[in-house]
Amino acid sequence: MKKIALASILSAFAALAFPQMVLADKPIGIAIHGGAGTINQAKMTASQQQAYEAALTEAITQGYAVLEQGGSSLDAVTRAVMVLEDSPLFNAGKGAVYTFDATHELDASIMQGQDRNAGAVAGVTTIKNPILLARAVMEQSEHVMLAGAGAEAFADTLNLARVPNTYYNTEFRFEALQRARQALAPQPHQASLPFEPNWRMGTVGAVAIDRSGNLAAATSTGGMTAKRYGRIGDAPVIGAGNFADNSSCAVSATGHGEYFIRYQVASDICARVKYQGKTAAEAATEVIAELATVGGTGGVIVVDAAGQLSWAFNTEGMYRAKRGSQTPLKVEIFSDKNQN
Amino acid sequence: MKKIALASILSAFAALAFPQMVLADKPIGIAIHGGAGTINQAKMTASQQQAYEAALTEAITQGYAVLEQGGSSLDAVTRAVMVLEDSPLFNAGKGAVYTFDATHELDASIMQGQDRNAGAVAGVTTIKNPILLARAVMEQSEHVMLAGAGAEAFADTLNLARVPNTYYNTEFRFEALQRARQALAPQPHQASLPFEPNWRMGTVGAVAIDRSGNLAAATSTGGMTAKRYGRIGDAPVIGAGNFADNSSCAVSATGHGEYFIRYQVASDICARVKYQGKTAAEAATEVIAELATVGGTGGVIVVDAAGQLSWAFNTEGMYRAKRGSQTPLKVEIFSDKNQN
Repeated sequence: MKKIALASILSAFAALAFPQMVLADKPIGIAIHGGAGTINQAKMTASQQQAYEAALTEAITQGYAVLEQGGSSLDAVTRAVMVLEDSPLFNAGKGAVYTFDATHELDASIMQGQDRNAGAVAGVTTIKNPILLARAVMEQSEHVMLAGAGAEAFADTLNLARVPNTYYNTEFRFEALQRARQALAPQPHQASLPFEPNWRMGTVGAVAIDRSGNLAAATSTGGMTAKRYGRIGDAPVIGAGNFADNSSCAVSATGHGEYFIRYQVASDICARVKYQGKTAAEAATEVIAELATVGGTGGVIVVDAAGQLSWAFNTEGMYRAKRGSQTPLKVEIFSDKNQN
Repeated sequence: MKKIALASILSAFAALAFPQMVLADKPIGIAIHGGAGTINQAKMTASQQQAYEAALTEAITQGYAVLEQGGSSLDAVTRAVMVLEDSPLFNAGKGAVYTFDATHELDASIMQGQDRNAGAVAGVTTIKNPILLARAVMEQSEHVMLAGAGAEAFADTLNLARVPNTYYNTEFRFEALQRARQALAPQPHQASLPFEPNWRMGTVGAVAIDRSGNLAAATSTGGMTAKRYGRIGDAPVIGAGNFADNSSCAVSATGHGEYFIRYQVASDICARVKYQGKTAAEAATEVIAELATVGGTGGVIVVDAAGQLSWAFNTEGMYRAKRGSQTPLKVEIFSDKNQN
């Protein structure tokens, strides 16, 4: 105990005397994603690509600024995910896909690594930034997961920006719903439909490490195009689409949610770090490759306790970016090499 | 490949020629729980204890009979959980606790270890046996998790027994709600309430291994007394209250759900089996002990690929039973020793 106290005092003194030196020892960083899937470079115009890159750059820059100013990883991932939710380009917040009934139902989750506290909401319909409601569940309720009308009723007790459900509307997502409905027409009452893989894709997320060494992860999504039956995907399921534990790593996932739940993608990556001594990058590469062998498509962004930021995906592309004190800014969409 | 084919042929021949011998090599078994919590022997009458023991004996006997007759572990856990759901003594199906608004909202999940397929429902209100709807989600939909009105709409497409919400009513649960409401009265609109630990307790579950070596787990609950805001606990969250993977183990959990989600209790036990080479019994004991150090209360039943049936809990008692080809029938409630 005395040793620790002495070390703390020396460290505090050093921080006052030589701030740069001490800060250089503590890596900070953030990685974000805007969904994985069939992202075909040949079909994307230069201006579309520019728009996605600009939105990713804005989100990573705002998230990293929080960390640079000494903010927490929790604040950084919240900030970055809000930027992505507010952009109509990604399937979360504004720009969320449509349900079968042409409405929007959104899911989000957040987790902090120091005490593994977490919050998640599923099927909300009037929250401008679902990640803020997930965070309120974590910080202002005794619960971890709230769903549907109940989650909205909890939001009524808070001071959060609300929107009519039409706020999330975008023309290109409505066109996607029309195509989905046409494809579903032969068997409209089945729950087991041959969904086109890209209908399930699209989630945004962020992982970060702050100067205190705390990890955090945030994930937000509009779910699956033409979804029905109150389907909950992996985004609000802790351990599947989101996980953070200071003793291993933080993960945000995107992809075919059902596989991510069954294979516990986020927590399995961290379990391999914790129990097998792998880096988060190695574990992420392994888990995403194994997922591909059983037919699960998607990807993850990860950060470990050493501040290493990386990603892995088994799809054509993943909207992604990272920046850290030891990592130059990188903004990528396609899969020249599908991990780093 | 040739080696495997030859082994299969020899094994099939041996099964025909010497059925008992081959069957003796293949352990079968099932364990069940009916919830963990403050179960005080001093406060329980002899007739109450007898009633609980009789219900547990009925469930374990019916589940084990499925296995003995060559049925699958999936069928065995379904059967055992249905018996527990139909008993008014346990917080699942008939006998489910009341929400704050004096209704009932039930959650259930099921998972099979050979392909990690899974199904879960949250917040259903008219399904006589929620475990059957969870199983239909697994077997008859492309999804893993359905919630609320959507899950009910999916049930409308199936041939499942439905009940009015009042079917789940029991007098002693209603009295528990009255006590909870009185305690909540000072701050009725807060989500962060000083809930009495026992309000969160009560879940039923089963884990089993069949002659093919397949593992399965099933969990069902009425949730938390006086719950609001569409709260989802760990029971329908794969990896938290339920997990099954032939390469490691199967787990059904009961306890303070929020902790079981944050600490990924079910999948963490199996991760320690898979990555650290522990037995399921060792891993379960460790995880439940660690959970106690952060304030999480509850317990688990587990079975591993070797057919070893065990349990661990950090509460005063857990309603539990087990029976296997290598395990004599055991029905217990209190914690003389809190694992086996």
